[in-house]
Amino acid sequence: MKKKIILDLDTGIDDTLAISYILGSPEVELIGITSTYGNVLVDQGIRNDLAVTDLLGHPEVPVYPGESHALNADSFAVSDISAFIHGKNGIGDVNIPDSFRNAESMNAVDFIIDSVKKYGKDLTFVPTGPETNIAKALQKAPEIKDEIGSIVIMGGALTVCGNVSATTEANISQDPEACDILFRSGAPVTMVGLDVTLQTLMTYKDSQQWREIGTSAATFLADMVDYYIKAYETTSPHLGGCGLHDPLAAAVAVDPTLVTTLDMNMKVDTEGEIRGRTIGDNERLNDPHKTIKVAVGVDKERFLNEFMTRIGNLAASAK
Amino acid sequence: MKKKIILDLDTGIDDTLAISYILGSPEVELIGITSTYGNVLVDQGIRNDLAVTDLLGHPEVPVYPGESHALNADSFAVSDISAFIHGKNGIGDVNIPDSFRNAESMNAVDFIIDSVKKYGKDLTFVPTGPETNIAKALQKAPEIKDEIGSIVIMGGALTVCGNVSATTEANISQDPEACDILFRSGAPVTMVGLDVTLQTLMTYKDSQQWREIGTSAATFLADMVDYYIKAYETTSPHLGGCGLHDPLAAAVAVDPTLVTTLDMNMKVDTEGEIRGRTIGDNERLNDPHKTIKVAVGVDKERFLNEFMTRIGNLAASAK
Repeated sequence: MKKKIILDLDTGIDDTLAISYILGSPEVELIGITSTYGNVLVDQGIRNDLAVTDLLGHPEVPVYPGESHALNADSFAVSDISAFIHGKNGIGDVNIPDSFRNAESMNAVDFIIDSVKKYGKDLTFVPTGPETNIAKALQKAPEIKDEIGSIVIMGGALTVCGNVSATTEANISQDPEACDILFRSGAPVTMVGLDVTLQTLMTYKDSQQWREIGTSAATFLADMVDYYIKAYETTSPHLGGCGLHDPLAAAVAVDPTLVTTLDMNMKVDTEGEIRGRTIGDNERLNDPHKTIKVAVGVDKERFLNEFMTRIGNLAASAK
Repeated sequence: MKKKIILDLDTGIDDTLAISYILGSPEVELIGITSTYGNVLVDQGIRNDLAVTDLLGHPEVPVYPGESHALNADSFAVSDISAFIHGKNGIGDVNIPDSFRNAESMNAVDFIIDSVKKYGKDLTFVPTGPETNIAKALQKAPEIKDEIGSIVIMGGALTVCGNVSATTEANISQDPEACDILFRSGAPVTMVGLDVTLQTLMTYKDSQQWREIGTSAATFLADMVDYYIKAYETTSPHLGGCGLHDPLAAAVAVDPTLVTTLDMNMKVDTEGEIRGRTIGDNERLNDPHKTIKVAVGVDKERFLNEFMTRIGNLAASAK
């Protein structure tokens, strides 16, 4: 059986690249997208998920509405920096047609739990925004921690500085308590954080390759990524490109050998100036049973090659 | 030629164990101890270095007086927690005879520079307190960064929480600017931090083995370590022993294969609440030339075996 993937997205430019990577990977099946908040409001994310999967030629992918705010919050507003990096509409202010489809009536949390029950170890869940949906699923059905195949998150920073503060990465900052619940749950997590995603960069030269494909899907992806690269020129001028955060997590879900990992027991700081920091849990440092694999190295060349090829092939075969 | 070692110590209980480990390692030569402040005042450290090397049967080891306070400070006072962990005299309030020797007239910084000029790649420098002496040496003779064999520090915390704050380890906290100078200098550094030293624990059962040897040296070491273990029962009850911080750095200087490392470019935060944090330098994340090896794994069993055997043999052959 093909590995089943659920993407849990706050779509988002690099979330869109994650969708593209998974749809361009014939060895896995995208059984659904669960939507969340972060780069955009959850409703905008749902809109983007439906529109993007349509444009990429995969209108069969169901989209499930997820949580609209953090566990300990009553509401959520998109930060100015998120809007700057992803555009007001989340996809680089590029216009693509709305889908004629709607989101499913089942909510994200129930879909996650049902999917674990159905597919068990064949299921990999990939949150690339805050961990609110999976934290709620773990609270509602704690046994899924032992039943799920793997959870590959894009988020956190262990050996490098954060991107919303010196200690904290953006996704974790949205809901530190949710990620702490995930990290302490015992579920098998691979953390794909800034340690590796800031090493996998895309440049205008790369997006030009997609542009030359000439389909609507390819042109959309090129325009959207160019917006993202331009934002990075302002926020991270030393990088020389844009970080491929979410698609790297998606790629690791398809092929874990793209990264080297440390086996750890992790926690998230939830208090004070360092709120949202992902760090080893000293109290479980000498527990031989480690539940988190933290990516600290990446085969950049192989990933970039897979990334360009898989998404290029998908975009060429779409409209 | 035997590898030459300089220990740079704020002696300290585990500094004393580092001296013992190096003196118990026939494959290396301890060409000198440079003294610094931290666990104790520099003068107390010098006193302890002279007295301990005498007791361990190695009165030939010269001791060089080093810096008495941080680069950006005018003075230094021992913290209450240091006095609690190491005892007022630094060696667990165990009484051992003063040495009849004095410290050398050459200062630590000049001895470091001279030794690099003399021994070059055969020299390994091992700071187990603040990095003030080596930072001053690098400021005075920057070229030694390319000439020295290796610098193995005990200090910092990359993947785990600190021990003086959530982000900061004690040695680095004494002089963050000095460690930042070292990290950014380009010198070949191996960082042996809390990531690994909190995994290498000693218990009363271990110290009892030394006590049974029966020499004055062995009894001193057992009494001193028992004081340290007792302090750890208060400060870190979850550990179940005392962390072998400084001797692990010494052991890695003798045999680097005891640890697994990440190749990184590191910096030290010097501002705000996270002052003293050791972390990857995001601006040099994609620089393929890495100058720091950060220990993230340790062969605990092999280290503990070497530790007990080498120090036990030394203590048995001393008075």
